[in-house]
Amino acid sequence: MTRGRNLHASQQDGARRVTMAEVAAAADVSIPTVSKVLNGRFDVAVETRERVEAAINTSGYARGKRKKDEAPWLIDLVFSDFGPYAIEIIKGAEEAALANKCRIAVSALSDDPKETRWLSNIGSGRTDGVILVFAELSPTHRQRLTALNVPVVIVDPLGHPDPSTPSIGVTNWAGGMTATDHLISLGHKRIGMIAGRPATLCNQQRLDGYRAALTRAGIEVDPALIFTGARFHPTALNAASAMLDLPNPPTAIFTTSDLHAMGVYEAARLHGLRLPDDLSVVGFDDIPMAEWVSPPLTTMRQPLAEMAGLAVQMLLGKGSSDLSHRIELATSLVVRSSTAPPRVQK
Amino acid sequence: MTRGRNLHASQQDGARRVTMAEVAAAADVSIPTVSKVLNGRFDVAVETRERVEAAINTSGYARGKRKKDEAPWLIDLVFSDFGPYAIEIIKGAEEAALANKCRIAVSALSDDPKETRWLSNIGSGRTDGVILVFAELSPTHRQRLTALNVPVVIVDPLGHPDPSTPSIGVTNWAGGMTATDHLISLGHKRIGMIAGRPATLCNQQRLDGYRAALTRAGIEVDPALIFTGARFHPTALNAASAMLDLPNPPTAIFTTSDLHAMGVYEAARLHGLRLPDDLSVVGFDDIPMAEWVSPPLTTMRQPLAEMAGLAVQMLLGKGSSDLSHRIELATSLVVRSSTAPPRVQK
Repeated sequence: MTRGRNLHASQQDGARRVTMAEVAAAADVSIPTVSKVLNGRFDVAVETRERVEAAINTSGYARGKRKKDEAPWLIDLVFSDFGPYAIEIIKGAEEAALANKCRIAVSALSDDPKETRWLSNIGSGRTDGVILVFAELSPTHRQRLTALNVPVVIVDPLGHPDPSTPSIGVTNWAGGMTATDHLISLGHKRIGMIAGRPATLCNQQRLDGYRAALTRAGIEVDPALIFTGARFHPTALNAASAMLDLPNPPTAIFTTSDLHAMGVYEAARLHGLRLPDDLSVVGFDDIPMAEWVSPPLTTMRQPLAEMAGLAVQMLLGKGSSDLSHRIELATSLVVRSSTAPPRVQK
Repeated sequence: MTRGRNLHASQQDGARRVTMAEVAAAADVSIPTVSKVLNGRFDVAVETRERVEAAINTSGYARGKRKKDEAPWLIDLVFSDFGPYAIEIIKGAEEAALANKCRIAVSALSDDPKETRWLSNIGSGRTDGVILVFAELSPTHRQRLTALNVPVVIVDPLGHPDPSTPSIGVTNWAGGMTATDHLISLGHKRIGMIAGRPATLCNQQRLDGYRAALTRAGIEVDPALIFTGARFHPTALNAASAMLDLPNPPTAIFTTSDLHAMGVYEAARLHGLRLPDDLSVVGFDDIPMAEWVSPPLTTMRQPLAEMAGLAVQMLLGKGSSDLSHRIELATSLVVRSSTAPPRVQK
């Protein structure tokens, strides 16, 4: 009954929804400019943005001014794959959605770029916003998504922001430096680094942070202790095995993901080494399993849930004028049991 | 353009949707009976079910007879929590949804039974079906969900099926027996068991399978080697530690979840034991991390993704008449590196 009455009321006094074009006309700007302001982008002159925001407010444009009994918004969370970090992202998005009368739909990109059913599903159904997670869209996909004319935010710890879309990442360079500093402070001097593909900017940034920490501490950067291009668990395992076979092996290894760190754990086991006594390991991400593996993993925490929650809030237009186009949240060191002073000081 | 035209066409030739009441009238049954048939329930007499199905088919009732260009269906996946198995469930549901022009919305139950925002969100938005995952609803929640009058399927490896709702589980008893048989076949005789709360039926079933395997092999069931009531990682760690401190400790431990197995890994490490040389471990679930931990975990695989996909298909009314009210999928043993013959035959 309540719901029906409210629907009726909204038909009487708010039936026709104010369009973006009307807001644009009122503010004397183009529709893309209105869209930019709604997306929280900062490449709009301050004066223009203020004019658009005033027009949004006075026109009663729906975004950010939702009626109490309107149907919940539906935000699409699109993953490149359901990797080990995915559940934290979903959790954060779902919590933010619940607090904002909003629902989260989940889909995954196929490896096949010709597969566009996910896009058709979003396009032919209702969506109020799209959050792309670690997703690198093909030009065709990007074009089709743009054509849907819904706001998009990228949650992208891979550091690959599409310059035309607001994105949320983390301070990767500082994270790489903090992780390495932790190992240096424990007395390690032979510190290996296993990094993902350097073409992915976050890996390059974490690697540069590692190098900077070593250099600052007066430790020579040894190319034999750096492996780049690790994908998933098996390559990290092989890379760590090769390092442990060196005449002067590392006493600690820092990796650009917790999953890579698991490869190092397995390499250590196969070499008969005990963690952390014989080898210290630091990961990156702080996925849930980091806490449960044996020994519990010391890692650089990316606030994945917070990043997803922030993305939801950006799409809902909350505090859009306070949010910059690219937001980087801080990483933090979580010390567990996989790091200790080296057994033999070399 | 295409979309507009199709909407127009459907307004002309299919505007009025056939209701459940009309199907009920045509079949001369009550509306709840139609609902039961649509939900794939088997507590409807065969003759009645056939009459209802005939009425559904001739009336053109929309479920299972969706028009090609209709908006995708929206199915709600409701978790009791986003545990380590959740991502496999989401993956399976998403794949089945994609293949059926359907979208998946995700939400989680709060620990607070008074928290009903998730239900309000589902109720005030659109939903075409609800999949409850491992969720034990309070009576109030159940009542409100029933009032929404949408089909519900429970994906419930916890073995707690609500008798009034179709559910999908696994063969827990057989799984417990297979896991224990594997350890017996390697030569183990002192086999510990760490089980979750026995009030949860699946745990009881797995425990009974373990007991049955021991008894069949002529091995005495030692109560000192059975711990029930483990919740998550820390309790499993403590339980395993206590067993390893026994004068005659186990040479192998079987657990009712992979997460419990991680607790055993950590207990072994703290006792200076190597896996699998000094202790064999078998888990249950085969969550993604089972493959990545060190050593990779031997476990009983629950086909979580398949279970979720099946739930989606049941909601879409695919093959409802072929599906029974309670479906149990088989578990399978995945042998990795955490099991080996005991070092010392006792």
